[in-house]
Amino acid sequence: MADKVHVVVDAMGGDNAPGLIVKGAVDALNENANVEVTLTGREADIQKALSGLQYPKDRLHIVHCEEVIEMAEPPVDAIRTKKDSSMVRGLRMVKNGEADAFVTAGSTGAALAGGQLLVGRIRGIERPPLAPILPTAKGPVLLIDCGANMDPRASMLLQFAQMGSIYMSNMTGIDKPRVGLVSVGTEEEKGNALTKEVFPLLKSCETINFVGNIEGRDIPEGAVDVAVTDAFTGNAILKTYEGVAGVLIHELKDAMLSTTRSKAGALLVKPALKDMLVKFDATRYGGAPMLGLKGLVVKTHGNSKSEEIRNAVAQCVLFKEKDINGQFVKEMELGPKG
Amino acid sequence: MADKVHVVVDAMGGDNAPGLIVKGAVDALNENANVEVTLTGREADIQKALSGLQYPKDRLHIVHCEEVIEMAEPPVDAIRTKKDSSMVRGLRMVKNGEADAFVTAGSTGAALAGGQLLVGRIRGIERPPLAPILPTAKGPVLLIDCGANMDPRASMLLQFAQMGSIYMSNMTGIDKPRVGLVSVGTEEEKGNALTKEVFPLLKSCETINFVGNIEGRDIPEGAVDVAVTDAFTGNAILKTYEGVAGVLIHELKDAMLSTTRSKAGALLVKPALKDMLVKFDATRYGGAPMLGLKGLVVKTHGNSKSEEIRNAVAQCVLFKEKDINGQFVKEMELGPKG
Repeated sequence: MADKVHVVVDAMGGDNAPGLIVKGAVDALNENANVEVTLTGREADIQKALSGLQYPKDRLHIVHCEEVIEMAEPPVDAIRTKKDSSMVRGLRMVKNGEADAFVTAGSTGAALAGGQLLVGRIRGIERPPLAPILPTAKGPVLLIDCGANMDPRASMLLQFAQMGSIYMSNMTGIDKPRVGLVSVGTEEEKGNALTKEVFPLLKSCETINFVGNIEGRDIPEGAVDVAVTDAFTGNAILKTYEGVAGVLIHELKDAMLSTTRSKAGALLVKPALKDMLVKFDATRYGGAPMLGLKGLVVKTHGNSKSEEIRNAVAQCVLFKEKDINGQFVKEMELGPKG
Repeated sequence: MADKVHVVVDAMGGDNAPGLIVKGAVDALNENANVEVTLTGREADIQKALSGLQYPKDRLHIVHCEEVIEMAEPPVDAIRTKKDSSMVRGLRMVKNGEADAFVTAGSTGAALAGGQLLVGRIRGIERPPLAPILPTAKGPVLLIDCGANMDPRASMLLQFAQMGSIYMSNMTGIDKPRVGLVSVGTEEEKGNALTKEVFPLLKSCETINFVGNIEGRDIPEGAVDVAVTDAFTGNAILKTYEGVAGVLIHELKDAMLSTTRSKAGALLVKPALKDMLVKFDATRYGGAPMLGLKGLVVKTHGNSKSEEIRNAVAQCVLFKEKDINGQFVKEMELGPKG
């Protein structure tokens, strides 16, 4: 059997830290004998969260850190100054080859800055994108990039498409993932200066299945498996996506509880609605991977519960077992045209 | 009494033309004695749609045009070559001062190109934005720009904020509309090169109530009345917004009809859900205004029914009666800082 996959989990990151974070890491350990987990954070807090849980003690390690990076801190400063934080220590373990991957529900900005500054990029990768997986009517879609690359060059978006395609193909088993470029119309000449420059690069890249420009509505409708965009637009889409879904579901619940009659009906439709909402839960695929680094960094939602953390650890294991970084290296060696 | 407001309606634009378009125009006429409507399009088709409808004949005019601009045509070409189309003839009437406003459910691209090329801009306005009104949990929000300005200058976004603020204040009665700049975080230093340049311009503009950066999720949550962005991002947000809401409502209906039990429940919750969906229907505010032109152009949804057309005509009347273009002119005369 191959070496165990070693995943570091930031025990202090997110709204539910350390309790549900630690629980998720333990669940992942119990589920898969081929994984080893290190929890970074305040040891006393972690031990408390572990008490009462059953887990293989030889595969769970704790690295005590005094500091925690808070959500509101300026990311780059935090990464540079809080050297004894659960995030910096975890990222350094990946950088040093002591671990394969790092999972955090903490500050997105700090994870992005830390991934780039501490872990470092694969040779040839210009910038590492952050790529959340969104649920759609027909399956998951990778929205790449939603990271720190606000004004990217066209060549970066080509790399995002290449990495996103390899990622989705390996992680979800989709054959030749459909890659779309987010624009304002399907015709090649539609878009802004960036997309007009990116379109021909994607079109001539032989290793991806480029299906052309897409519009925002194609994402929830599941028209593609990989949606390529700059991080500014990606962030706007991601937040709008989550916001609209959140508001509608909230209003729906309110409406169902608004009258005696609707309350009675709500009890009857509840099981069917639950099934539907499960379909729209993309956390089964783990968190958002930050790709193109020497290792894997996974950012889960700030409100992650144990299940998302467990899935994120499983995601790291699959990423390593499929040697996705090895595939990225090969793809980059083929040169800019794939 | 003041002169009647004269609105031209493109009888051939949209999925439901001419039937429901003509019906909507007639409803608007019957509702308000101070409006005059001209329908542009094939006279025989329009007469057929009018047969059986009751309306004041002295306030309804028909301008026969042989041509129709189709949805798939290249917009600029269509506007330049189809001089006898319902859209070009209607826009020319606004340009020539024969009408105050033009309403169309036809091609957005052609309406944008035609507004800019045929109607012309108010002095001082760099580019006319298209600003759809989105429904939110707390009221309508104007998303400005979703038009043709793909790579705008910062000074254009300042003008969008100024016009959007005046528009919302007058049209929906909101006092000091809250203006937000779409970005990737609330802090001033967050964003791309464009938003970083726009932020200080909005901050120092004394005639608007700038509340700072917003994220995509703040739009459905109703955190602002005016959301300022470039047309590329605006289009991505708009299409994602409509797409996510459409997919969720579709899946919800499917789920409710999936079992005998859920069907029984659906009957009971239906009235409450209908009330909720009415709240999320922004068509009561009309269509998306294209602002900064010498006149008003309103683009309604391609699938507009009579109610949206009726509301769009009412929107044109209010726009004229409140002299919003006069207010834009004054605002521009105050100079770039408002």
